[in-house]
Amino acid sequence: MLQLFSVDDHIVEPPHVWTDRVAAKFRETAPHVIEEDGRQYWVYEDRRHTNMGLNAVAGKPREQWGNDPIRFSDMIPGCYDPKARAEDMRADGIFASVNFPTLPRFGGALFLSFNDKELADVCVRAWNDFVLDEWCAAAPEMFVPMIICQLWDPALASKEIERCVSKGARAVCFIEDPLPFGLPSFHTAHWDPFWGACEDAGVPVCMHLSSSGSTFLGDQDPPVVEIASAFVKSARASINLMVSPVPHKFPRIKMVWSEGGIGWIPAALERADRQYARHKYWSTLPEGMPSEVAAKNMWWCMIEEPVGLKYRYDIGVDRIMWECDYPHADSTWPDSQKIASEVLDGVPSDEVEMITHKTACSLFDWMAPARQSRA
Amino acid sequence: MLQLFSVDDHIVEPPHVWTDRVAAKFRETAPHVIEEDGRQYWVYEDRRHTNMGLNAVAGKPREQWGNDPIRFSDMIPGCYDPKARAEDMRADGIFASVNFPTLPRFGGALFLSFNDKELADVCVRAWNDFVLDEWCAAAPEMFVPMIICQLWDPALASKEIERCVSKGARAVCFIEDPLPFGLPSFHTAHWDPFWGACEDAGVPVCMHLSSSGSTFLGDQDPPVVEIASAFVKSARASINLMVSPVPHKFPRIKMVWSEGGIGWIPAALERADRQYARHKYWSTLPEGMPSEVAAKNMWWCMIEEPVGLKYRYDIGVDRIMWECDYPHADSTWPDSQKIASEVLDGVPSDEVEMITHKTACSLFDWMAPARQSRA
Repeated sequence: MLQLFSVDDHIVEPPHVWTDRVAAKFRETAPHVIEEDGRQYWVYEDRRHTNMGLNAVAGKPREQWGNDPIRFSDMIPGCYDPKARAEDMRADGIFASVNFPTLPRFGGALFLSFNDKELADVCVRAWNDFVLDEWCAAAPEMFVPMIICQLWDPALASKEIERCVSKGARAVCFIEDPLPFGLPSFHTAHWDPFWGACEDAGVPVCMHLSSSGSTFLGDQDPPVVEIASAFVKSARASINLMVSPVPHKFPRIKMVWSEGGIGWIPAALERADRQYARHKYWSTLPEGMPSEVAAKNMWWCMIEEPVGLKYRYDIGVDRIMWECDYPHADSTWPDSQKIASEVLDGVPSDEVEMITHKTACSLFDWMAPARQSRA
Repeated sequence: MLQLFSVDDHIVEPPHVWTDRVAAKFRETAPHVIEEDGRQYWVYEDRRHTNMGLNAVAGKPREQWGNDPIRFSDMIPGCYDPKARAEDMRADGIFASVNFPTLPRFGGALFLSFNDKELADVCVRAWNDFVLDEWCAAAPEMFVPMIICQLWDPALASKEIERCVSKGARAVCFIEDPLPFGLPSFHTAHWDPFWGACEDAGVPVCMHLSSSGSTFLGDQDPPVVEIASAFVKSARASINLMVSPVPHKFPRIKMVWSEGGIGWIPAALERADRQYARHKYWSTLPEGMPSEVAAKNMWWCMIEEPVGLKYRYDIGVDRIMWECDYPHADSTWPDSQKIASEVLDGVPSDEVEMITHKTACSLFDWMAPARQSRA
C-alpha cells in the first residue's frame, strides 16, 4: 500500500461557513445559501451564484457526469463535510490532504470582486477561520491548513498570513497571474509584502491551475477544450514568475503549481532558458536562468501522467508531488491506490516515496504516520 | 552538410508590395510607406504602423538587439529582397523556405481589421500576387509559395485559395484561433469552405505561433515572458482543433504548427486523450482520440530543441520539421549548418533526413536538389 499525501483537493463550502462567522450587519451580504424552485443558490452582495459545487462528481460514474450539482444533496457528504471527507481519504489510503476553496474560487479571488472591501476582508478571514477551526480541526492529522488572503491589499494579506500561520496554517493559496484581474504585475514591487510574509513564515504558495480566471473558451466551444489545454495556464504563469524579480528578492520563496501537470516542464524550461539567453541583453531581466529558478523555488504536481513520469529525471524527481483532486472529475478517488500504483509501476521505491509523500511532507512541514512508514 | 528545408521564415515586405498592385483609387488607403522625422512608417486606411520589420535582427549580434527597425536601412537586404534572401539561405545550406507575412501579421489578420472590405480583399490578393509573381519567382527552386486569405469571408477565401493554387501556391497561412478576433469558433460550420478548399487542393494550413494575436502581457512585464511561454498558444490551439469537428469533416486536412515547438507535445497529447476519455460522455465531441487526430492531421516544427528531439519517438519522428526563422531573433541563420548538426548529433541519419527536409518535401510537394541528395 502506498502512503499518499494529496497536495490538491477541494473543499465544497457548507452553507454555514460565513453565516456562522460574520457580524449581524453582514449576514445578508456575506455568502449564504437560499432555496428557490427546488434549487439552492449561493447569494452574496447583490449577486447569485448558480453553482453549488463546481465539478463535484466524486462518487458518480463517468457516464453520469454532466451539469454541476444544484443542491448539496446532489453531492456525497465528503464534498462538504470534513469528517466524511477524512473517512473517504483514509479509505483510499491517503494520510494528508491540502484543500483549495470552491466558492471563493481556486485562488480566493471571489472577494477581490466585492464592492464592499470591509465585507470582503471579513469574508476572507471567515473562510480562513472555517478552514483552521472547523475543517482541519475535524481531522487535524489529515488536513493541511491552507488559507486565502486579501488579494486587493498585499499589506493586509501579509498580516492575515501572519495571523493564520500563528494559528497553524501551513500554506497560502494564491492566484497564478494577477493581470486578468486588473491587478499589478508580478514584475512590480506591489506584491512584496505578500511574498515577504510567505517567505518569512516558510509556507509554500500554492497556485492552482486556472486560478487566474482567464479563458479563451467561446460559447460554441465544448468545455473539454479548456480542460484539455489548461496546463498552458500553469506553464505561462510559472515562466512568468521564473523571469520575474520575485525569486531574486525572496530567494527562499516556495511556489507550488497545483494541478499544472508535469510532462510539459522540460520543454518549457528549455524554451525559457533559450529565450532568456537570447533576450537578456535588451530586456530588463534579473540574473539567473529560468531553469535554475525553477529548481530552487518551484514544485510541480501530478494526478496520473505516465509521460510526465517517464521524463521525471528532466523535471527533478524531488520536485514532483502527487494529487488526488477530490471531488473533481480528474480525481483518482476512490481508486487512488490502484491508479497511483499502476502509474508508478517501474519507478524505484525511493522515488515513489518522494512523489507520493516525502517531498510534500518536507514542503508542508507535515509528518507521515509512523505506523505506515517503510523507511 | 545537411540538406535543410526551412518551414518557417519571414518576409519583410518591401514598400512597393501594394502600391505596385492596387488600383489608383486604393493608392492612399492600401499599405504604403511614408518618411517622417527620419523614420519610415507603413500607413494604411487611417492608421500608421510604427514597425517596419518586426524583430528583424538577422545579421546583428545578440548584444545589439533592441528596438525593432525603424527604416529599411536598419535591416540587411535579405529581410525584404528575395534575391538577397535566397543567397543568404543558400550560403547557410538551406534549399527551400516557407515564408510568413510581416505587415499582414503571421496569420494574415491585418486585413480583417480593415473598415473597407473591398480594399481588404484587394490587399490580400496583392500580397498573394507579390509572393507568387515576385518573391517566389526570384528563386523558384528556393521559395515555397504560401498565401494568405480573406479571414472575414471563408467562401471568398476558398476562391482565393483555388486561384492561387492554380498559380502555384503550395501552402495556406492561417490564424491559430479565431476567437481573439471575434470570429466564429472552429467548432462551428462557419469555416467549412476554407477547410474544404485546403483539403481539395492538398495544401497544408500553416498556423504560426501567436497568429491569434492574444496576449496577457501587461505594460509592466518584460516581453521575454511572452516569448518564452509562447508555445502555450500552439498547444491551446492545436488541442482545440484536435477535439473540433474539422479533422472529422475534412479527414485529409494537413495542419502545421509553425514555430510551436515540439517538446511539450507528448504531455499535451496525454492530457488531451485523458480529458477526452473522461468528458466525452457529456460533452459534444466527435469520435477519435486527440492523439489519433494529431498523428493523422498534424505536423510540428522545431528550431533547436534538444529536449524535444530526445522525446521524438513520443512525438512521431516523421511529424517533426526543421525551421530557420530568418530574420527573427530565434533564427539559426547564419549558422544553421552548425547549430542543426549539433542539435541533431546522435540522431540516426534516416531520422535526420526526415526532420531536416524529407517530411517537408513530402508535405509541401517539393523536390530536394538532386545534386545534394544522399539517398
